[in-house]
Amino acid sequence: AELIAAVSLAAGTVAVGFLAYRTFFSKEKCCKDRVNLDIQKDNPKVVHAFDIEDLGDKAVYCRCWRSKKFPLCDGSHTKHNEETGDNVGPLIVKRKEA
Amino acid sequence: AELIAAVSLAAGTVAVGFLAYRTFFSKEKCCKDRVNLDIQKDNPKVVHAFDIEDLGDKAVYCRCWRSKKFPLCDGSHTKHNEETGDNVGPLIVKRKEA
Repeated sequence: AELIAAVSLAAGTVAVGFLAYRTFFSKEKCCKDRVNLDIQKDNPKVVHAFDIEDLGDKAVYCRCWRSKKFPLCDGSHTKHNEETGDNVGPLIVKRKEA
Repeated sequence: AELIAAVSLAAGTVAVGFLAYRTFFSKEKCCKDRVNLDIQKDNPKVVHAFDIEDLGDKAVYCRCWRSKKFPLCDGSHTKHNEETGDNVGPLIVKRKEA
């Protein structure tokens, strides 16, 4: 009976400790609700500016922050939406009747 | 000793159950790594398209999905970055020398 008590207590302690760790460290302090997981993480604010005159006929810009061609869209939002249940899509800027 | 064993076992079971619930339901199935938390959640893919001829001198587009003026930026990325440790910013499209 004492052995069972000791094992149970140990298991409970480990479980509670792991839960507490997950709750306070993994989620709160790190990446909860972050939008950008990988891009230019050494830059405190990733802003892009383009001149309208240089756009050409059509430009498609990433808003899911998963594109390998960021700031341009590469279609990564489709996989992101499937994996997370999200519903994001790109911003398109184009010339009329292009 | 048996009472202690029973209580410890119960506590351990509850902790493990809660941990399993959190791991498999709260995180995996719901909102892990979602980018857009609120905007047009009845739309499976939120895409915006604008004609270059209609842009005016400058347009600033939201990429954090927190703007009250979405798809336009309202500066919400600043609060979002502070609260989450993120580093996102808007996309700016402007005429040269505006």
